[in-house]
Amino acid sequence: MIKIGILGYGNLGKGVEKAILKNNDMELTAIFTRRNPDSLKVSTKTAKVVNINEIEQYKDKIDVLIICGGSATDLPVQTPKYAELFNVIDSFDTHAKIPEHFNNVDRSAQKSGKIAIISVGWDPGLFSLNRLYANAILPDGSDYTFWGKGVSQGHSDAVRRIEGVVDAKQYTIPIENALEKVRKGENPLLSTREKHTRECFVVAKDGADKAKIEQEIKTMPNYFADYDTTVHFISEEELKKNHSAIPHGGFVLRSGKTSDENSHIIEYSLKLDSNPEFTSSVLVAYARAAYRMNKKGEYGCKTVFDIAPKYLISKTDEEIRKTML
Amino acid sequence: MIKIGILGYGNLGKGVEKAILKNNDMELTAIFTRRNPDSLKVSTKTAKVVNINEIEQYKDKIDVLIICGGSATDLPVQTPKYAELFNVIDSFDTHAKIPEHFNNVDRSAQKSGKIAIISVGWDPGLFSLNRLYANAILPDGSDYTFWGKGVSQGHSDAVRRIEGVVDAKQYTIPIENALEKVRKGENPLLSTREKHTRECFVVAKDGADKAKIEQEIKTMPNYFADYDTTVHFISEEELKKNHSAIPHGGFVLRSGKTSDENSHIIEYSLKLDSNPEFTSSVLVAYARAAYRMNKKGEYGCKTVFDIAPKYLISKTDEEIRKTML
Repeated sequence: MIKIGILGYGNLGKGVEKAILKNNDMELTAIFTRRNPDSLKVSTKTAKVVNINEIEQYKDKIDVLIICGGSATDLPVQTPKYAELFNVIDSFDTHAKIPEHFNNVDRSAQKSGKIAIISVGWDPGLFSLNRLYANAILPDGSDYTFWGKGVSQGHSDAVRRIEGVVDAKQYTIPIENALEKVRKGENPLLSTREKHTRECFVVAKDGADKAKIEQEIKTMPNYFADYDTTVHFISEEELKKNHSAIPHGGFVLRSGKTSDENSHIIEYSLKLDSNPEFTSSVLVAYARAAYRMNKKGEYGCKTVFDIAPKYLISKTDEEIRKTML
Repeated sequence: MIKIGILGYGNLGKGVEKAILKNNDMELTAIFTRRNPDSLKVSTKTAKVVNINEIEQYKDKIDVLIICGGSATDLPVQTPKYAELFNVIDSFDTHAKIPEHFNNVDRSAQKSGKIAIISVGWDPGLFSLNRLYANAILPDGSDYTFWGKGVSQGHSDAVRRIEGVVDAKQYTIPIENALEKVRKGENPLLSTREKHTRECFVVAKDGADKAKIEQEIKTMPNYFADYDTTVHFISEEELKKNHSAIPHGGFVLRSGKTSDENSHIIEYSLKLDSNPEFTSSVLVAYARAAYRMNKKGEYGCKTVFDIAPKYLISKTDEEIRKTML
């Protein structure tokens, strides 16, 4: 059994706990938290709930620590720190800062002889893998990534920060017509506005100026100004009833030529009922890889690009050749 | 520059030649043939055309030999034989015989210290990779593979062997309604007949009994009896004009649950203008991986499951982390 530790028990940490139940070569040994351990209601009765300050005592009791913090402030500190003690996995998703994060984590993991796999999930993660495979196979071509339909936490948060807004959910929606052009091999040049629309469901304070809120949303730089955005004002009950789920997904396409005559389309897509549960399932598969590769003597910081696919699945090499190739 | 040799100059070998032109870290050094070398019209002027009997002289002149023979009789002999001299790639696609082929090739490659990557292409190959990734991430789920719309050489050949048939092309067509059920997460149990239809374009001899030919096609065991098949009789000119291309493609889907509430769909699809040109492009990317891994001291028989994605692309690790993750 591979012994897993979870650091952080939010949506992602709870997803990891569920994912472990689907993998019979793994067990959840401990959940580490910054909160008072007694305050956590944990589903896995056999798992210890431990304050983060006592994590060092688990150095030899855990095979892989899955770090479930946020990319803005948690992971840049936690991943380098805990790679000094454990094989670790994180889902660092600030694309522009990946090289810096990689270097920081690598320094720790080189010293400790552990494996740290960073930026695991679906984007970065599975989408990145598909970009790489498709580019390697069709070097002469164009890449397209579409996201959604799904909830963007960052955009929902941005709407919530507007004065007069009680709560909000924002959906990112790919434009079907743009997707179809790519699928037909037309290699369109697509502006930001031509690829996605944004839809907001907003609960406003009693007496708030809804026209002003709508205007503020639609003109918000970076988040909404470059998109066609629809705003719906709804009641708190309606938001809770119809918009509590966290679905997401998206499409990665590459269109490329192998000769003057022949073009090809490679398409990968995800349709996810729960973004955090799916992301957690990817984290858990890569935790298996970290464990196995470290057992073979490998260490240092890795990304999904460095991991041979066989390490992800709980079957022998003979089995996968026989049943999946 | 990675020096490539091609063994066999049919559709696949010609595709490899074209693929090398799209990859600027590779050059085509030699084409080996069982035919008289003078009889081959080769596009790459700088490549030698050599009789297969002289291949040993190229032992130190070629980094990777891409073997472009057929799975029925060529590859079971050629891949083990030439893995004694070269890093080799093949596209062995007889799924049931892969374990046996793997063992034969591994014996040679272990002895020679070379790398042999077998069963490279899109199925087996890219489809296999997607089955593995999706199964690792969603262990609790169902797999679906659909092929087409595309030309099946095996089925076209089977029709051509019928008495009274001059020429024929067979298309395998996925049933859209079945695909939609899978995409909706209905987890349907699908019979062979419910997944694909078959469509044949047949040129009959003058005076042949067309009703009898149609009957023979539709009742042919293994090939057609389990499918709904449509047969069209057309002229030789029409076959040449409208059915000379070799398109193919298909879909790999996995539908799986991460908890009682939440299901997810992972879908991978290919739409290919030319099956051999695309397959060749996959072979060439894996040739790069064979070269790089062997440089690092690795050897033995491998499949796509054993190859870390980074080895496939002609960019540095830093570049791919920065631009593709």
